[in-house]
Amino acid sequence: MSDSRPIGVFDSGLGGLTVVKELNRLLPKEDIVYFGDTGRVPYGNRSENTIKRYAREDENFLLSQDVKIIIAACGTVSSVASDVSSELTIPFFEVVSHASHEAVRVTRNKKIGVIGTAATIKSGKHKEYISVLLPKARVIGQSCPLFVPLVEEGWYNANDVVVKETVNRYLTPFINEEIDTLILGCTHYPVLSEAISSVLGEGVTLVNAGTATAKAVFEFLKTKDMLSNKEKGENQFYVSDKADSFRTQASILLGDELDDNKVRLVSLSSL
Amino acid sequence: MSDSRPIGVFDSGLGGLTVVKELNRLLPKEDIVYFGDTGRVPYGNRSENTIKRYAREDENFLLSQDVKIIIAACGTVSSVASDVSSELTIPFFEVVSHASHEAVRVTRNKKIGVIGTAATIKSGKHKEYISVLLPKARVIGQSCPLFVPLVEEGWYNANDVVVKETVNRYLTPFINEEIDTLILGCTHYPVLSEAISSVLGEGVTLVNAGTATAKAVFEFLKTKDMLSNKEKGENQFYVSDKADSFRTQASILLGDELDDNKVRLVSLSSL
Repeated sequence: MSDSRPIGVFDSGLGGLTVVKELNRLLPKEDIVYFGDTGRVPYGNRSENTIKRYAREDENFLLSQDVKIIIAACGTVSSVASDVSSELTIPFFEVVSHASHEAVRVTRNKKIGVIGTAATIKSGKHKEYISVLLPKARVIGQSCPLFVPLVEEGWYNANDVVVKETVNRYLTPFINEEIDTLILGCTHYPVLSEAISSVLGEGVTLVNAGTATAKAVFEFLKTKDMLSNKEKGENQFYVSDKADSFRTQASILLGDELDDNKVRLVSLSSL
Repeated sequence: MSDSRPIGVFDSGLGGLTVVKELNRLLPKEDIVYFGDTGRVPYGNRSENTIKRYAREDENFLLSQDVKIIIAACGTVSSVASDVSSELTIPFFEVVSHASHEAVRVTRNKKIGVIGTAATIKSGKHKEYISVLLPKARVIGQSCPLFVPLVEEGWYNANDVVVKETVNRYLTPFINEEIDTLILGCTHYPVLSEAISSVLGEGVTLVNAGTATAKAVFEFLKTKDMLSNKEKGENQFYVSDKADSFRTQASILLGDELDDNKVRLVSLSSL
Protein backbone atom coordinates (compact mmCIF):
# COMPACT_ATOMS: atom_id res chain seq x y z
CA MET A 1 0.00 0.00 0.00
CA SER A 2 1.07 3.55 -0.63
CA ASP A 3 -0.36 7.03 -0.76
CA SER A 4 0.92 9.39 -3.42
CA ARG A 5 -1.02 12.44 -2.24
CA PRO A 6 1.24 15.32 -1.21
CA ILE A 7 2.26 16.32 2.30
CA GLY A 8 0.82 19.74 3.17
CA VAL A 9 3.11 22.16 4.99
CA PHE A 10 2.31 25.71 6.06
CA ASP A 11 3.99 28.57 7.87
CA SER A 12 3.31 32.22 8.55
CA GLY A 13 5.94 32.99 5.93
CA LEU A 14 9.01 31.25 4.59
CA GLY A 15 10.65 29.96 7.78
CA GLY A 16 8.84 26.66 7.31
CA LEU A 17 11.10 25.98 4.33
CA THR A 18 13.74 24.77 6.82
CA VAL A 19 11.24 22.00 7.63
CA VAL A 20 10.69 21.27 3.92
CA LYS A 21 14.47 20.93 3.61
CA GLU A 22 14.47 18.20 6.29
CA LEU A 23 11.43 16.48 4.73
CA ASN A 24 13.12 16.45 1.32
CA ARG A 25 16.20 14.89 2.86
CA LEU A 26 14.38 12.19 4.81
CA LEU A 27 11.41 11.60 2.49
CA PRO A 28 12.69 12.27 -1.04
CA LYS A 29 9.82 10.42 -2.72
CA GLU A 30 7.12 12.61 -1.19
CA ASP A 31 5.38 15.45 -3.03
CA ILE A 32 5.10 18.55 -0.87
CA VAL A 33 2.63 21.43 -1.11
CA TYR A 34 3.88 24.40 0.88
CA PHE A 35 1.82 27.45 1.80
CA GLY A 36 3.56 30.55 3.20
CA ASP A 37 1.26 33.34 4.40
CA THR A 38 3.60 36.09 3.22
CA GLY A 39 0.67 38.54 3.02
CA ARG A 40 0.31 38.48 6.81
CA VAL A 41 3.74 37.42 8.11
CA PRO A 42 4.91 37.59 10.91
CA TYR A 43 2.49 35.81 13.25
CA GLY A 44 4.85 35.82 16.25
CA ASN A 45 3.86 39.17 17.69
CA ARG A 46 0.10 38.82 17.15
CA SER A 47 -2.59 37.78 19.62
CA GLU A 48 -3.68 34.19 20.14
CA ASN A 49 -7.10 34.76 18.55
CA THR A 50 -5.64 36.28 15.41
CA ILE A 51 -3.06 33.49 15.06
CA LYS A 52 -5.79 30.85 15.39
CA ARG A 53 -7.93 32.49 12.73
CA TYR A 54 -5.00 32.75 10.35
CA ALA A 55 -3.97 29.10 11.00
CA ARG A 56 -7.48 27.85 10.22
CA GLU A 57 -7.43 29.68 6.89
CA ASP A 58 -3.97 28.32 6.01
CA GLU A 59 -5.13 24.78 6.77
CA ASN A 60 -8.24 25.23 4.65
CA PHE A 61 -6.08 26.15 1.70
CA LEU A 62 -3.97 23.00 2.13
CA LEU A 63 -7.12 20.86 2.45
CA SER A 64 -8.21 22.20 -0.93
CA GLN A 65 -4.99 20.71 -2.34
CA ASP A 66 -5.93 17.15 -1.32
CA VAL A 67 -2.96 16.64 1.02
CA LYS A 68 -2.66 13.46 3.10
CA ILE A 69 -1.33 15.12 6.25
CA ILE A 70 -0.79 18.71 7.39
CA ILE A 71 2.34 20.00 9.11
CA ALA A 72 2.33 23.37 10.89
CA ALA A 73 5.96 24.25 10.15
CA CYS A 74 5.64 27.31 12.34
CA GLY A 75 6.66 27.53 15.97
CA THR A 76 4.07 30.19 16.67
CA VAL A 77 1.09 28.26 15.23
CA SER A 78 2.33 25.04 16.88
CA SER A 79 2.52 26.80 20.24
CA VAL A 80 -0.71 28.73 20.37
CA ALA A 81 -3.06 27.33 17.73
CA SER A 82 -2.68 23.54 17.76
CA ASP A 83 -6.17 23.07 19.16
CA VAL A 84 -7.58 24.61 15.98
CA SER A 85 -6.33 21.49 14.24
CA SER A 86 -8.46 19.13 16.30
CA GLU A 87 -11.18 19.99 13.78
CA LEU A 88 -9.10 18.52 10.94
CA THR A 89 -10.14 15.22 9.37
CA ILE A 90 -6.59 14.29 8.33
CA PRO A 91 -3.48 13.73 10.52
CA PHE A 92 -1.83 16.88 11.84
CA PHE A 93 1.77 17.48 12.92
CA GLU A 94 3.28 20.46 14.66
CA VAL A 95 6.87 21.28 15.57
CA VAL A 96 6.66 21.95 19.32
CA SER A 97 5.97 18.46 20.66
CA HIS A 98 8.59 16.84 18.42
CA ALA A 99 11.24 19.41 19.28
CA SER A 100 10.43 18.92 22.98
CA HIS A 101 10.79 15.14 22.68
CA GLU A 102 14.13 15.54 20.94
CA ALA A 103 15.38 17.96 23.60
CA VAL A 104 14.46 15.50 26.35
CA ARG A 105 16.31 12.76 24.45
CA VAL A 106 19.56 14.73 24.14
CA THR A 107 19.83 16.66 27.41
CA ARG A 108 22.13 15.32 30.08
CA ASN A 109 21.94 17.95 32.79
CA LYS A 110 18.17 18.49 32.35
CA LYS A 111 18.61 22.21 31.73
CA ILE A 112 16.89 23.10 28.47
CA GLY A 113 16.60 26.50 26.81
CA VAL A 114 13.87 27.48 24.35
CA ILE A 115 13.99 30.42 21.96
CA GLY A 116 11.10 31.56 19.79
CA THR A 117 8.75 34.40 18.94
CA ALA A 118 7.01 36.38 21.67
CA ALA A 119 3.79 34.35 21.18
CA THR A 120 5.67 31.03 21.34
CA ILE A 121 7.54 31.82 24.54
CA LYS A 122 4.45 33.32 26.17
CA SER A 123 2.52 30.11 25.46
CA GLY A 124 4.93 28.00 27.58
CA LYS A 125 4.03 25.04 25.34
CA HIS A 126 7.54 23.53 25.15
CA LYS A 127 7.79 23.60 28.93
CA GLU A 128 4.41 21.88 29.16
CA TYR A 129 5.55 18.99 26.94
CA ILE A 130 8.97 18.69 28.57
CA SER A 131 7.53 18.69 32.10
CA VAL A 132 5.45 15.63 31.30
CA LEU A 133 8.38 13.72 29.79
CA LEU A 134 11.05 14.82 32.25
CA PRO A 135 9.44 16.30 35.35
CA LYS A 136 12.73 17.37 36.88
CA ALA A 137 13.82 19.37 33.83
CA ARG A 138 14.45 23.08 34.16
CA VAL A 139 13.13 24.89 31.07
CA ILE A 140 14.10 28.50 30.37
CA GLY A 141 12.40 30.46 27.60
CA GLN A 142 13.56 33.59 25.79
CA SER A 143 11.79 35.41 22.98
CA CYS A 144 14.03 36.80 20.23
CA PRO A 145 11.87 39.17 18.15
CA LEU A 146 14.76 40.44 16.02
CA PHE A 147 15.92 37.02 14.76
CA VAL A 148 13.28 36.71 12.02
CA PRO A 149 13.86 40.22 10.60
CA LEU A 150 17.63 39.61 10.67
CA VAL A 151 17.32 36.35 8.71
CA GLU A 152 14.89 37.96 6.26
CA GLU A 153 17.35 40.80 5.68
CA GLY A 154 20.04 38.19 4.94
CA TRP A 155 22.05 39.13 8.03
CA TYR A 156 22.79 35.74 9.61
CA ASN A 157 26.55 35.32 9.24
CA ALA A 158 28.18 34.39 12.55
CA ASN A 159 30.88 37.03 12.02
CA ASP A 160 28.45 39.89 11.37
CA VAL A 161 28.71 42.38 14.26
CA VAL A 162 24.97 43.06 14.38
CA VAL A 163 24.17 39.35 14.32
CA LYS A 164 26.78 38.51 16.94
CA GLU A 165 25.71 41.26 19.33
CA THR A 166 21.98 40.54 18.93
CA VAL A 167 22.48 36.80 19.49
CA ASN A 168 24.69 37.59 22.45
CA ARG A 169 22.14 39.89 24.06
CA TYR A 170 19.27 37.41 23.79
CA LEU A 171 21.28 34.31 24.74
CA THR A 172 23.55 35.45 27.57
CA PRO A 173 20.96 34.37 30.19
CA PHE A 174 21.36 30.79 28.93
CA ILE A 175 25.11 30.83 29.60
CA ASN A 176 24.51 31.75 33.22
CA GLU A 177 21.87 29.02 33.49
CA GLU A 178 24.34 26.43 32.12
CA ILE A 179 21.84 24.80 29.73
CA ASP A 180 23.18 21.91 27.62
CA THR A 181 20.33 21.91 25.07
CA LEU A 182 18.61 24.71 23.17
CA ILE A 183 15.39 24.29 21.20
CA LEU A 184 15.22 26.48 18.11
CA GLY A 185 11.51 27.11 18.57
CA CYS A 186 10.98 29.10 15.39
CA THR A 187 11.56 27.59 11.96
CA HIS A 188 13.61 30.60 10.83
CA TYR A 189 16.24 30.01 13.47
CA PRO A 190 18.25 27.09 11.99
CA VAL A 191 19.74 29.68 9.62
CA LEU A 192 21.31 31.30 12.70
CA SER A 193 22.71 28.00 14.08
CA GLU A 194 26.33 28.90 13.52
CA ALA A 195 25.94 32.33 15.15
CA ILE A 196 24.08 30.79 18.08
CA SER A 197 26.70 28.06 18.61
CA SER A 198 29.50 30.59 18.48
CA VAL A 199 27.91 32.35 21.47
CA LEU A 200 26.79 29.31 23.47
CA GLY A 201 29.74 27.07 22.61
CA GLU A 202 29.78 23.56 21.16
CA GLY A 203 28.74 22.10 24.52
CA VAL A 204 25.15 23.18 23.91
CA THR A 205 23.19 20.96 21.49
CA LEU A 206 20.81 22.86 19.21
CA VAL A 207 17.52 21.12 18.49
CA ASN A 208 16.19 21.81 15.00
CA ALA A 209 12.41 21.39 15.15
CA GLY A 210 12.31 20.56 11.44
CA THR A 211 14.60 17.54 11.77
CA ALA A 212 12.67 16.21 14.76
CA THR A 213 9.32 16.68 13.01
CA ALA A 214 10.47 15.12 9.72
CA LYS A 215 11.53 12.00 11.65
CA ALA A 216 8.12 11.76 13.32
CA VAL A 217 6.35 12.20 9.98
CA PHE A 218 8.49 9.48 8.41
CA GLU A 219 7.69 7.02 11.21
CA PHE A 220 3.98 7.81 11.03
CA LEU A 221 3.67 7.41 7.24
CA LYS A 222 5.66 4.17 7.35
CA THR A 223 3.56 2.67 10.14
CA LYS A 224 0.32 3.65 8.41
CA ASP A 225 1.46 2.45 4.96
CA MET A 226 1.03 5.98 3.69
CA LEU A 227 4.48 6.54 2.13
CA SER A 228 4.58 7.59 -1.51
CA ASN A 229 6.04 5.12 -4.01
CA LYS A 230 6.96 7.77 -6.56
CA GLU A 231 10.39 7.77 -8.17
CA LYS A 232 11.06 11.30 -6.89
CA GLY A 233 8.82 13.77 -5.10
CA GLU A 234 8.29 17.38 -6.10
CA ASN A 235 7.84 20.60 -4.14
CA GLN A 236 5.09 23.04 -5.04
CA PHE A 237 5.08 26.41 -3.30
CA TYR A 238 2.19 28.81 -2.72
CA VAL A 239 2.44 32.23 -1.09
CA SER A 240 -0.19 34.86 -0.29
CA ASP A 241 2.01 37.79 -1.39
CA LYS A 242 5.23 38.69 -3.22
CA ALA A 243 5.69 35.49 -5.17
CA ASP A 244 8.33 37.33 -7.20
CA SER A 245 10.72 37.79 -4.31
CA PHE A 246 10.26 34.24 -3.03
CA ARG A 247 13.39 32.90 -4.67
CA THR A 248 16.00 34.92 -2.76
CA GLN A 249 14.49 34.16 0.64
CA ALA A 250 13.87 30.53 -0.26
CA SER A 251 17.46 29.92 -1.25
CA ILE A 252 18.58 31.05 2.23
CA LEU A 253 16.07 28.90 4.08
CA LEU A 254 15.83 25.89 1.81
CA GLY A 255 19.51 26.00 0.94
CA ASP A 256 18.69 25.24 -2.68
CA GLU A 257 18.19 27.00 -5.98
CA LEU A 258 14.58 27.23 -7.11
CA ASP A 259 12.66 27.54 -10.36
CA ASP A 260 10.40 30.58 -10.34
CA ASN A 261 7.67 28.56 -11.96
CA LYS A 262 7.33 26.41 -8.87
CA VAL A 263 5.91 29.36 -6.93
CA ARG A 264 2.31 30.51 -7.23
CA LEU A 265 0.43 33.38 -5.68
CA VAL A 266 -2.87 32.50 -4.02
CA SER A 267 -5.45 34.85 -2.64
CA LEU A 268 -7.14 33.50 0.46
CA SER A 269 -10.55 35.12 -0.01
CA SER A 270 -10.64 36.22 3.60
CA LEU A 271 -7.04 37.39 3.74
CA MET B 1 -17.34 78.54 11.09
CA SER B 2 -15.81 75.47 12.59
CA ASP B 3 -15.90 71.70 12.25
CA SER B 4 -15.68 69.61 15.39
CA ARG B 5 -15.57 66.23 13.64
CA PRO B 6 -12.35 64.32 14.34
CA ILE B 7 -9.29 64.04 12.12
CA GLY B 8 -8.84 60.44 10.95
CA VAL B 9 -5.31 59.03 10.97
CA PHE B 10 -4.22 55.53 9.99
CA ASP B 11 -1.03 53.54 9.73
CA SER B 12 -0.01 49.93 9.15
CA GLY B 13 0.75 49.78 12.86
CA LEU B 14 1.82 52.23 15.50
CA GLY B 15 4.48 54.27 13.66
CA GLY B 16 1.79 56.79 12.71
CA LEU B 17 1.64 57.84 16.35
CA THR B 18 4.67 60.04 15.67
CA VAL B 19 2.36 61.97 13.33
CA VAL B 20 -0.36 62.13 16.01
CA LYS B 21 2.26 63.59 18.33
CA GLU B 22 2.90 66.44 15.86
CA LEU B 23 -0.82 66.96 15.28
CA ASN B 24 -1.46 67.18 19.04
CA ARG B 25 1.28 69.76 19.32
CA LEU B 26 0.14 71.94 16.43
CA LEU B 27 -3.62 71.36 16.62
CA PRO B 28 -4.40 70.78 20.31
CA LYS B 29 -8.12 71.48 19.89
CA GLU B 30 -8.67 68.71 17.35
CA ASP B 31 -10.14 65.29 18.17
CA ILE B 32 -8.19 62.50 16.55
CA VAL B 33 -9.31 58.99 15.65
CA TYR B 34 -6.32 56.75 15.00
CA PHE B 35 -6.44 53.32 13.40
CA GLY B 36 -3.36 51.06 13.52
CA ASP B 37 -3.57 47.84 11.53
CA THR B 38 -1.57 45.86 14.09
CA GLY B 39 -3.15 42.61 12.86
CA ARG B 40 -1.33 42.92 9.52
CA VAL B 41 1.68 45.13 10.27
CA PRO B 42 4.21 45.60 8.65
CA TYR B 43 3.10 46.74 5.17
CA GLY B 44 6.60 47.77 4.03
CA ASN B 45 7.69 44.43 2.62
CA ARG B 46 4.40 43.56 0.94
CA SER B 47 3.38 43.94 -2.69
CA GLU B 48 1.70 47.04 -4.10
CA ASN B 49 -1.62 45.28 -4.65
CA THR B 50 -1.78 44.00 -1.10
CA ILE B 51 -0.87 47.39 0.35
CA LYS B 52 -3.60 49.07 -1.71
CA ARG B 53 -6.22 46.60 -0.56
CA TYR B 54 -5.23 47.04 3.08
CA ALA B 55 -5.21 50.86 2.75
CA ARG B 56 -8.73 50.87 1.31
CA GLU B 57 -9.99 48.84 4.25
CA ASP B 58 -8.26 51.10 6.77
CA GLU B 59 -9.83 54.17 5.16
CA ASN B 60 -13.26 52.57 5.20
CA PHE B 61 -12.96 52.07 8.93
CA LEU B 62 -12.09 55.76 9.44
CA LEU B 63 -14.99 56.84 7.20
CA SER B 64 -17.31 54.89 9.51
CA GLN B 65 -16.09 57.17 12.33
CA ASP B 66 -17.34 60.34 10.61
CA VAL B 67 -13.93 61.98 10.29
CA LYS B 68 -13.51 65.29 8.44
CA ILE B 69 -10.21 64.43 6.75
CA ILE B 70 -8.04 61.32 6.47
CA ILE B 71 -4.27 61.23 6.93
CA ALA B 72 -2.24 58.22 5.79
CA ALA B 73 0.43 58.45 8.52
CA CYS B 74 2.35 55.67 6.85
CA GLY B 75 5.25 56.14 4.46
CA THR B 76 4.47 52.89 2.69
CA VAL B 77 0.79 53.65 2.03
CA SER B 78 1.65 57.23 1.05
CA SER B 79 4.23 55.95 -1.44
CA VAL B 80 2.42 53.13 -3.18
CA ALA B 81 -1.30 53.48 -2.46
CA SER B 82 -2.16 57.18 -2.63
CA ASP B 83 -4.22 56.68 -5.79
CA VAL B 84 -6.60 54.47 -3.80
CA SER B 85 -7.59 57.64 -1.97
CA SER B 86 -8.79 59.43 -5.10
CA GLU B 87 -12.03 57.51 -4.46
CA LEU B 88 -12.48 59.27 -1.12
CA THR B 89 -15.21 61.91 -0.74
CA ILE B 90 -13.33 63.79 2.02
CA PRO B 91 -9.91 65.50 1.89
CA PHE B 92 -6.92 63.15 2.05
CA PHE B 93 -3.37 63.82 3.23
CA GLU B 94 -0.30 61.63 2.95
CA VAL B 95 3.22 62.06 4.28
CA VAL B 96 5.38 61.73 1.15
CA SER B 97 4.50 64.94 -0.69
CA HIS B 98 4.75 67.08 2.46
CA ALA B 99 8.08 65.55 3.49
CA SER B 100 9.37 66.12 -0.05
CA HIS B 101 8.31 69.80 0.01
CA GLU B 102 10.01 70.27 3.34
CA ALA B 103 13.22 68.64 2.10
CA VAL B 104 13.28 70.95 -0.92
CA ARG B 105 12.78 73.92 1.40
CA VAL B 106 15.72 73.05 3.67
CA THR B 107 18.36 71.62 1.31
CA ARG B 108 21.22 73.89 0.28
CA ASN B 109 23.40 71.60 -1.79
CA LYS B 110 20.42 69.86 -3.48
CA LYS B 111 21.59 66.43 -2.36
CA ILE B 112 18.72 64.73 -0.55
CA GLY B 113 18.63 61.26 0.98
CA VAL B 114 15.45 59.25 1.58
CA ILE B 115 15.12 56.27 3.92
CA GLY B 116 12.05 54.08 4.19
CA THR B 117 10.66 50.58 3.87
CA ALA B 118 11.46 48.44 0.83
CA ALA B 119 8.09 49.30 -0.76
CA THR B 120 8.57 53.04 -0.17
CA ILE B 121 12.04 53.20 -1.68
CA LYS B 122 11.07 50.98 -4.60
CA SER B 123 8.19 53.35 -5.42
CA GLY B 124 10.55 56.28 -6.02
CA LYS B 125 7.70 58.58 -4.97
CA HIS B 126 9.81 61.09 -3.01
CA LYS B 127 12.14 61.46 -5.97
CA GLU B 128 9.14 62.06 -8.22
CA TYR B 129 7.87 64.94 -6.04
CA ILE B 130 11.31 66.44 -5.51
CA SER B 131 12.18 66.34 -9.22
CA VAL B 132 9.17 68.50 -10.02
CA LEU B 133 9.99 71.07 -7.33
CA LEU B 134 13.75 71.10 -7.75
CA PRO B 135 14.71 69.51 -11.07
CA LYS B 136 18.43 69.68 -10.36
CA ALA B 137 18.21 67.83 -7.05
CA ARG B 138 20.02 64.57 -6.60
CA VAL B 139 17.84 62.12 -4.61
CA ILE B 140 19.32 58.96 -3.15
CA GLY B 141 17.08 56.28 -1.61
CA GLN B 142 17.93 53.51 0.84
CA SER B 143 15.57 50.96 2.34
CA CYS B 144 16.19 50.08 6.00
CA PRO B 145 14.10 46.97 6.72
CA LEU B 146 15.52 46.46 10.23
CA PHE B 147 14.64 49.92 11.58
CA VAL B 148 10.97 49.13 12.33
CA PRO B 149 11.73 45.83 14.16
CA LEU B 150 14.46 47.61 16.16
CA VAL B 151 12.11 50.39 17.27
CA GLU B 152 9.38 47.87 18.08
CA GLU B 153 11.84 45.90 20.22
CA GLY B 154 12.66 49.13 22.07
CA TRP B 155 16.24 49.18 20.76
CA TYR B 156 16.63 52.75 19.54
CA ASN B 157 19.15 54.30 21.92
CA ALA B 158 21.96 56.02 20.00
CA ASN B 159 24.58 54.31 22.22
CA ASP B 160 23.25 50.80 21.67
CA VAL B 161 25.85 48.80 19.70
CA VAL B 162 23.27 47.00 17.56
CA VAL B 163 21.44 50.25 16.79
CA LYS B 164 24.65 52.12 16.01
CA GLU B 165 26.04 49.41 13.73
CA THR B 166 22.73 48.90 11.91
CA VAL B 167 22.26 52.63 11.34
CA ASN B 168 25.85 52.88 10.23
CA ARG B 169 25.51 50.07 7.71
CA TYR B 170 22.39 51.49 6.08
CA LEU B 171 23.48 55.13 6.10
CA THR B 172 27.18 55.04 5.15
CA PRO B 173 26.33 55.50 1.45
CA PHE B 174 24.81 58.90 2.34
CA ILE B 175 28.07 60.10 3.90
CA ASN B 176 29.92 59.39 0.68
CA GLU B 177 27.20 61.18 -1.29
CA GLU B 178 27.50 64.26 0.95
CA ILE B 179 23.75 64.79 1.35
CA ASP B 180 22.69 67.73 3.55
CA THR B 181 19.07 66.61 4.06
CA LEU B 182 17.57 63.22 4.94
CA ILE B 183 13.86 62.42 4.71
CA LEU B 184 12.68 60.00 7.39
CA GLY B 185 10.30 58.30 4.98
CA CYS B 186 8.74 55.94 7.52
CA THR B 187 6.78 57.20 10.49
CA HIS B 188 8.66 54.89 12.88
CA TYR B 189 11.97 56.52 12.12
CA PRO B 190 11.78 59.76 14.17
CA VAL B 191 12.40 57.55 17.23
CA LEU B 192 15.82 56.81 15.72
CA SER B 193 16.64 60.48 15.04
CA GLU B 194 19.40 60.71 17.62
CA ALA B 195 21.07 57.51 16.41
CA ILE B 196 20.81 58.67 12.80
CA SER B 197 22.25 62.12 13.56
CA SER B 198 25.13 60.60 15.48
CA VAL B 199 26.13 58.72 12.31
CA LEU B 200 25.45 61.46 9.74
CA GLY B 201 26.53 64.40 11.87
CA GLU B 202 24.67 67.59 12.74
CA GLY B 203 25.28 68.99 9.24
CA VAL B 204 22.52 66.79 7.84
CA THR B 205 18.97 68.03 8.51
CA LEU B 206 16.45 65.27 9.24
CA VAL B 207 12.99 65.81 7.82
CA ASN B 208 10.22 64.42 10.02
CA ALA B 209 7.28 63.63 7.75
CA GLY B 210 4.87 64.04 10.65
CA THR B 211 5.87 67.63 11.36
CA ALA B 212 5.64 68.57 7.69
CA THR B 213 2.24 66.93 7.30
CA ALA B 214 0.81 68.44 10.49
CA LYS B 215 1.72 71.90 9.18
CA ALA B 216 -0.04 71.23 5.87
CA VAL B 217 -3.13 69.95 7.68
CA PHE B 218 -3.22 73.04 9.89
CA GLU B 219 -3.02 75.38 6.89
CA PHE B 220 -5.72 73.45 5.06
CA LEU B 221 -8.21 73.37 7.95
CA LYS B 222 -7.63 77.05 8.64
CA THR B 223 -8.14 78.08 5.03
CA LYS B 224 -11.30 75.98 4.74
CA ASP B 225 -12.72 77.15 8.09
CA MET B 226 -12.68 73.57 9.27
CA LEU B 227 -10.73 73.96 12.53
CA SER B 228 -12.35 72.64 15.68
CA ASN B 229 -13.39 75.19 18.32
CA LYS B 230 -13.29 72.70 21.20
CA GLU B 231 -11.55 73.61 24.44
CA LYS B 232 -9.22 70.63 24.12
CA GLY B 233 -9.19 67.76 21.63
CA GLU B 234 -9.03 64.08 22.52
CA ASN B 235 -7.28 61.09 20.97
CA GLN B 236 -9.14 57.83 20.42
CA PHE B 237 -7.11 54.82 19.31
CA TYR B 238 -8.26 51.70 17.46
CA VAL B 239 -6.09 48.71 16.59
CA SER B 240 -6.83 45.48 14.74
CA ASP B 241 -4.85 43.28 17.16
CA LYS B 242 -3.14 43.27 20.55
CA ALA B 243 -4.85 46.25 22.10
CA ASP B 244 -3.39 45.13 25.43
CA SER B 245 0.21 45.73 24.42
CA PHE B 246 -0.54 49.06 22.77
CA ARG B 247 0.52 51.14 25.72
CA THR B 248 4.22 50.22 25.82
CA GLN B 249 4.72 50.81 22.11
CA ALA B 250 2.60 53.95 22.13
CA SER B 251 4.63 55.55 24.88
CA ILE B 252 7.79 55.17 22.77
CA LEU B 253 6.23 56.60 19.63
CA LEU B 254 3.83 59.15 21.05
CA GLY B 255 6.21 60.12 23.84
CA ASP B 256 3.31 60.25 26.29
CA GLU B 257 1.63 58.11 28.90
CA LEU B 258 -1.70 56.64 27.84
CA ASP B 259 -4.86 55.42 29.46
CA ASP B 260 -5.65 51.84 28.47
CA ASN B 261 -9.30 52.76 28.11
CA LYS B 262 -8.50 54.98 25.16
CA VAL B 263 -7.59 51.94 23.05
CA ARG B 264 -10.16 49.69 21.40
CA LEU B 265 -9.83 46.54 19.35
CA VAL B 266 -11.72 46.51 16.07
CA SER B 267 -12.18 43.62 13.71
CA LEU B 268 -12.19 44.65 10.07
CA SER B 269 -14.53 42.00 8.74
CA SER B 270 -12.23 41.26 5.83
CA LEU B 271 -9.02 41.31 7.82
